[in-house]
Amino acid sequence: MRILSSELKEHIGKPVHVEGWLHKKRMLGGLTFINVRDRGGLVQIVIDSKDETEKLRGLQIGTILAVDGSVVEEPRAPGGAELHEASLTVMVPVQAEPPIEIDKPLSHRPDNLDTLFEYRPIGLRNLQETAIFKVQSAITKGIREYFYSQDFTEIRTPKLLAAATEGGAEVFKIDYFGQEATLAQSPQFYKQIMVGVFERAFEIAPVYRAEPSATTRHMTEYISVDGEVGFISIVELKQLLGGLLNFVNDYIWEHNEAELKLLRATKPALTKEIPSIPMQEIHEKYTKATGNSTIGEKDLRPDEERWICEYAAKELGSEAVFVTDWPASEMKFYHKAQPDNPELADRIDMLFRGVEIVTGSMRENDYEVVVKQLKEQAGGNPEDPGFKPLLQAMQSGMPPHGGFGMGLERVTQKFIGLNNVKEASLFPRDINRLAP
Amino acid sequence: MRILSSELKEHIGKPVHVEGWLHKKRMLGGLTFINVRDRGGLVQIVIDSKDETEKLRGLQIGTILAVDGSVVEEPRAPGGAELHEASLTVMVPVQAEPPIEIDKPLSHRPDNLDTLFEYRPIGLRNLQETAIFKVQSAITKGIREYFYSQDFTEIRTPKLLAAATEGGAEVFKIDYFGQEATLAQSPQFYKQIMVGVFERAFEIAPVYRAEPSATTRHMTEYISVDGEVGFISIVELKQLLGGLLNFVNDYIWEHNEAELKLLRATKPALTKEIPSIPMQEIHEKYTKATGNSTIGEKDLRPDEERWICEYAAKELGSEAVFVTDWPASEMKFYHKAQPDNPELADRIDMLFRGVEIVTGSMRENDYEVVVKQLKEQAGGNPEDPGFKPLLQAMQSGMPPHGGFGMGLERVTQKFIGLNNVKEASLFPRDINRLAP
Repeated sequence: MRILSSELKEHIGKPVHVEGWLHKKRMLGGLTFINVRDRGGLVQIVIDSKDETEKLRGLQIGTILAVDGSVVEEPRAPGGAELHEASLTVMVPVQAEPPIEIDKPLSHRPDNLDTLFEYRPIGLRNLQETAIFKVQSAITKGIREYFYSQDFTEIRTPKLLAAATEGGAEVFKIDYFGQEATLAQSPQFYKQIMVGVFERAFEIAPVYRAEPSATTRHMTEYISVDGEVGFISIVELKQLLGGLLNFVNDYIWEHNEAELKLLRATKPALTKEIPSIPMQEIHEKYTKATGNSTIGEKDLRPDEERWICEYAAKELGSEAVFVTDWPASEMKFYHKAQPDNPELADRIDMLFRGVEIVTGSMRENDYEVVVKQLKEQAGGNPEDPGFKPLLQAMQSGMPPHGGFGMGLERVTQKFIGLNNVKEASLFPRDINRLAP
Repeated sequence: MRILSSELKEHIGKPVHVEGWLHKKRMLGGLTFINVRDRGGLVQIVIDSKDETEKLRGLQIGTILAVDGSVVEEPRAPGGAELHEASLTVMVPVQAEPPIEIDKPLSHRPDNLDTLFEYRPIGLRNLQETAIFKVQSAITKGIREYFYSQDFTEIRTPKLLAAATEGGAEVFKIDYFGQEATLAQSPQFYKQIMVGVFERAFEIAPVYRAEPSATTRHMTEYISVDGEVGFISIVELKQLLGGLLNFVNDYIWEHNEAELKLLRATKPALTKEIPSIPMQEIHEKYTKATGNSTIGEKDLRPDEERWICEYAAKELGSEAVFVTDWPASEMKFYHKAQPDNPELADRIDMLFRGVEIVTGSMRENDYEVVVKQLKEQAGGNPEDPGFKPLLQAMQSGMPPHGGFGMGLERVTQKFIGLNNVKEASLFPRDINRLAP
């Protein structure tokens, strides 16, 4: 029976059978050392017989091998043990050299990214690349465990939409049996509608943005983690989001320390309560510190996002920070204005290690007010099939509610410390890339 | 502090505060009984004061209420307790009558489905509708728990593709910055590629089929549960799938019995090992039993699928059955032919309660053979950007592998006993429906 590389140490002194990919080969003295890769990691195998070595002649990295041998303790080998007296069976020979290196870390320099993505199907077999997506899988799992612990129900909402509703630009259009349809940029209205059903709903699914430029922060397709909660205040929404980030941080460092260390990631410092700073206060602090005035601006500049994260890390002990009190004029029509200051909206974006990873806000839940904001702020028609379902839900009773969207790849990028969000996507998509 | 309806019984004799939607209202003698719905279910509230009753004047189902009262044991009330001495606060008044009934089960008759879907945002608040999607959420959770227990890693693959690869028809086309792109019909090639990375990978995500007719079995967007496994035989693949169905069955009946019973679902009988019947044997049995000859046909007729499921339930004690030994000529180019009978392919479709819920098969993992099959069977070009990544993975070493795709809505439909797959989709999409 096959055992995994990760189980090797339980079998010291015993014969075992492993199967996997030839990952590395080197000769030393009369001996051949090979590494075989399986889903548990690597097995080091020592081959001292000429006949066995001969079986590998002309075969390349990637060849599928079955190996019988006996397990010997060896602290310097991966997993603390290696296979001796190996007898090989070639399950699938590989004659072609791999088009990209598998046994050495791949360059992630900006001018190498195209090569990295071009050969993704093979490059992902590199242990460093594999580690990124093991961590991503764990992040997703951690997020869901947190949502479940908070009594959320998972939903699945359509990505094929009748009409462009939010932000007419940057929408992909589809030929839908001769009609025009669009791809969802966000499950925004659907998740709000589902608050009326489940109170607390989450979805983790792709969304689409026809982003016309190739940046390090954007993709045309990404995985959006969406949560929406009824009967909640902005204070509770911040607690929920802070709880989520803290939970996921601890979760991945508990379950994936090996991968994170391989990637030279450092565990972010986070306070239990993530600090909040109103936008204008950030502008003041930034202006004072840098001499570049941003006073009165209605958004943060990218440099300001980096600066305030450094400030929060140094002064407040948290590598994440909420930006609060956004100008209502910059918000979507469904925003909730602050009751005592309607010029400001109850929006809370979360910045983490220099970049915005979460957009969150309270939503207006009064039907008449939403309709008014839709007409006045967005020039929208309440009868538009894109808006109608949300308004129908409002008209039939919606509690105070708020929610957020978080880019899975951005969170992965920031936890690991990658430069470009695309490095955290298995098969990234941008204006220049639709394959592999 | 707010408590949930489901926590009521822990507070008997004590004052509590609940918040939720007015779900039902009736007068009886001088008393008013209301039900308030929250994410835990319903609270029954008895109002004996005229002033309190007056607060509800002119307000409709859906009104958001906060209610203070004291908990009294009452076996006939939902949750075994009700609120007395209630004092109401109207959080959000609803003046408009709901466009569809919320407090009575909705008709799912074929001629009512359009109404059901048209008013989804409100109709989903009906407890029967909510229950369907509570069960669906649990099915997804159970599927993932099973995958994790079998050492699978979750993947996220792109739905925006450069070219139509599998099945040129039934593909949606997108305007991608002036270029043509398509929407993925399946993550087939990507999940195979990821076997080269993780050995065992799964994805639960939307896929798209430009199905030009409205049937009870198809949607244009649905959630596909995909698994792919390396170093596996067809026998093991069947065990894995049988394990999955059994696990999910037990999981939902353990965690969601209340919802399943509300929906009048019955727990399907399943054997630990799901029985397998070769396609030609099914044809023979069916022909003998019904007099309609299907001998020599290369697929099963819908009526035959129903018949063999009834046969398996009655004769083999399992409401699920594998159909094996498919004609290779009907398979996709990446299929694995049986070594001793290349006319047949190692495909295993799983039928469950009369319909196919899983398509599974072993895949050809020899690069040369796959290229040959691609050219000869599909007339495909190995340099096509749609095929190249998969072939690149094959050329660099792929183990014996197989996998499957399962429609989440179909599984939900069959576990619950719904007639139309669209009833198991929150916001279904077909040729006639793009909203809500």
